[in-house]
Order: sequence, then C-alpha cells, then structure tokens
Amino acid sequence: VSDSVLLSEIAEQPGVLERLLRDAAPEIEAIASDIRARGVHHVVIAARGSSDNAARYAQYLFGSHNRLTVTLATPSLFTLYRTPPMMTGALVVGISQSGESPDLVAVVEEGRRQGCPTLAITNVAGSPLTAVADHTIVLRAGQERSIAATKTYTAQLAALAMFSTALAQNKEWRQELARVPEFVADALRAGDEAIVIAAGALKNAGHGVVLGRGFNFATAFEIALKAKELACVAVEPYS
Amino acid sequence: VSDSVLLSEIAEQPGVLERLLRDAAPEIEAIASDIRARGVHHVVIAARGSSDNAARYAQYLFGSHNRLTVTLATPSLFTLYRTPPMMTGALVVGISQSGESPDLVAVVEEGRRQGCPTLAITNVAGSPLTAVADHTIVLRAGQERSIAATKTYTAQLAALAMFSTALAQNKEWRQELARVPEFVADALRAGDEAIVIAAGALKNAGHGVVLGRGFNFATAFEIALKAKELACVAVEPYS
Repeated sequence: VSDSVLLSEIAEQPGVLERLLRDAAPEIEAIASDIRARGVHHVVIAARGSSDNAARYAQYLFGSHNRLTVTLATPSLFTLYRTPPMMTGALVVGISQSGESPDLVAVVEEGRRQGCPTLAITNVAGSPLTAVADHTIVLRAGQERSIAATKTYTAQLAALAMFSTALAQNKEWRQELARVPEFVADALRAGDEAIVIAAGALKNAGHGVVLGRGFNFATAFEIALKAKELACVAVEPYS
Repeated sequence: VSDSVLLSEIAEQPGVLERLLRDAAPEIEAIASDIRARGVHHVVIAARGSSDNAARYAQYLFGSHNRLTVTLATPSLFTLYRTPPMMTGALVVGISQSGESPDLVAVVEEGRRQGCPTLAITNVAGSPLTAVADHTIVLRAGQERSIAATKTYTAQLAALAMFSTALAQNKEWRQELARVPEFVADALRAGDEAIVIAAGALKNAGHGVVLGRGFNFATAFEIALKAKELACVAVEPYS
C-alpha cells in the first residue's frame, strides 16, 4: 500500500466521523439504554495495537465521565492458560478494526458465557467478533488498506465517546461531539508545515520518548506506535 | 550509590525471601481470611515503576489462580481529574517500596472512602500508604539504597504469591513457595558467565526489545526498566 493511500485515508477522517456521528447514534443510544438497565459498574476491554490505545482512552473516558472502572484484559489468561477471571458486574468489550483476532474473540465469548453484557466495536459488520457479542457498533469507516490504522482509530475514539455520552445521557457532550469533524478538518488543513518540521526531527532521532498524561496518555501510545510502524523509530510513550 | 551496593542488594534476595516467607505468613493468612469474608471479585492495584511490574505479575497470578479480574489503576483519574471511578466489589491495593507516593496513597484512600477493603504492600512500616490501608504486608527487605529496585521487587512478587496462595488456601502452592529462596540462591550462583555475555550484548545494542508472555510479561517489563535505569539502553517490552 503506497503512501498516497495512507494520506487519503488520513484525509477521509472528517467525513468518516461525520457519518459515524449521524448514522450510528440511534444504535448506540439503544445499546447504552440496555447497558444502563443491566447495572454495570465495571468494563473489561480486549484490544490489540491501535485498538488497545483506543481502550486506554476509554479508561480515562469511562472512568471520569461514567465513574466506571476499566480493565484492559490480558487475553493470554483466556487462551494460553485457559483460566479466565470472573468478570462479575462487567460489560465486556472487544475493539478490533477487522473483528478477526481470535484472542479478542475468546475474551468476549467468555464474557457472554459468564452472563456479562458484551459489545463489539469494529469496522467489519458480520466479523467473528460481532458473532459472539450481544451488541455491535460498526465504525462505517470504509475499507482501511494501510496497515497503519488512522481513520479507524479516530472512529474508535468517536464511537467510545458517543457510547460514554449515551450512557451518561449528557446533551452538552453530544453537542460538543457534533463539532469534532469540523475540528479534525481544521487540524488537517492547518497542520502541514508544523507536521513536516516535526517529521524531520523524528526521522533523524534514532530513538526517543513521547509524553502524554491522562486522556492524552493514549495519544502518546498511538504516536509511539505510528513512529515505530511508519518511520521505524523506537519511540516510547511516558506519562 | 555504588555498583557494589547494588550487587550486595541483589545477593541479599534469598535471605530476604526466606525471612518474608517465614515471618509474614501469619499476617498474610489473617488478611486473606478477612478478604475472603468480604466477597471480593475484583482487584484494583495502584503502583509505579518496578512496583507496577509487580502489579502486572499480579494480573496473571490473581487472574489464573484466584479467578479475580485485576485492574491497573490510572492514578491521574484520582488526582488530576478528581473523578475517581467507582470500585464496587474491589479490593484496592497499593504497592510501593517506600510507601510515599502521593498519587498511590490517593487511590487507596479513595478505595477506603468507597468502603472497599484496602491493602498496602510496602517495605516501610508506618509509611503514608499504610496509614490509609486496612491491611499492610511489610516486605522486611531491609533498607534498599540503590534507586534500581532488586530485592524489594522480588519480595513484592513473593508477597503477592503468598497472598494469592492464602486466598486460595492451596497447600501445594505453599510448599512450592517455600523452595523459592533456594531456587533464587542457585540462580545467583549459576548465572555469572551467561549474565556477563548477555550484559555485553546489551551494552552495545543501542536499543532493542525484550519478549515475555503471560506471567513473564511482567519480567519483560522489569528487564526493560532495568536496561533503561542501569545501562541507559532503550529496551522495549513486548508480549
């Protein structure tokens, strides 16, 4: 996949977010209504790579906005050791662009077996992850051809924010979310020069660290992952 | 602190572990008995640095041996954002060599405020962390003068294993644990030549990765931290 495909997927983000905010809102409201009725006080999230960074964002989002404790699952407890923990009182969520990863499917499947409500967040309707979940949020981002996730990562963040907002039934946050596609479009237009300078510094760095705290700890992880995937620079995230 | 202090602290490990296994057993049995009576199904652990790697070990240990879901706390939710999540049904644990870190104290204090059972694991009896916890396991490792934690890290792992074993009331595991000081002494005697070769490779590596899965994912994190702290080599842990 060429650089121009990656750039065009990056450029699609405002449109993807606008479509998600418009078309997925009714299903997300319905899911949140069901989850509220189930009396959940804890969330277990299984994810890998960029999706795991979206899960890290959810730790802060669900923690501060919904007062839910969020656990990032350790899938090998479910697959390698075959001794899954009890997830009493938890909503079990799988986040995966493709919805294919067998270890994430195993976590969500075990959640269902234990009687927990389960949720898949994926770009691929009908993928294996959706088959084991009670509820699915489909990202509607269109096919992502680059290995480096861009439009599906920001769509995952938006889906999590929509779900958090629907759980809290908070109208103000809903209005703020509606403006995100416009902010993303502005950032894509404005950022070119600063980005080229930053990329030049990164290219010659050899290795480095990227700092982020709280909500942006996830951003630090995602920047570090992108630096490794795309620029082969060993960048490490720190809080 | 000189290298010889670090080496002598490394050499103390079999003795520290033997003392912990002998002297702390009654208090750990009593704590486990209380926690069992509280009907805990979830554990939230707050820790930093090497102690956070001990917490990572606890994720696999409590998950597979006690079927408990383990969450690594995000202290900034408690301090920076002041919107702590509800930790319903959780045992809240703080792990800290010194017991001083204010953000870890804030997590355990909030757990107590919410009515959760709370536990401090620390090397310093009477430290601030112990003041906000219902129960304390004191590591009895003696003063650790090196910044790089060695004997207190392995003592934390042993304390967690003793606690897990006491929770499960498993006699077989207790017998296995009793042999650990001997295994550690053997490893310290046998390892010299292989360690010198590995250290030479690390010294000239510039940067690298260390692989570990499941229980040894924590070990991979701890090796990476030590490579950074002591050899200034940017090593990253991977599952």
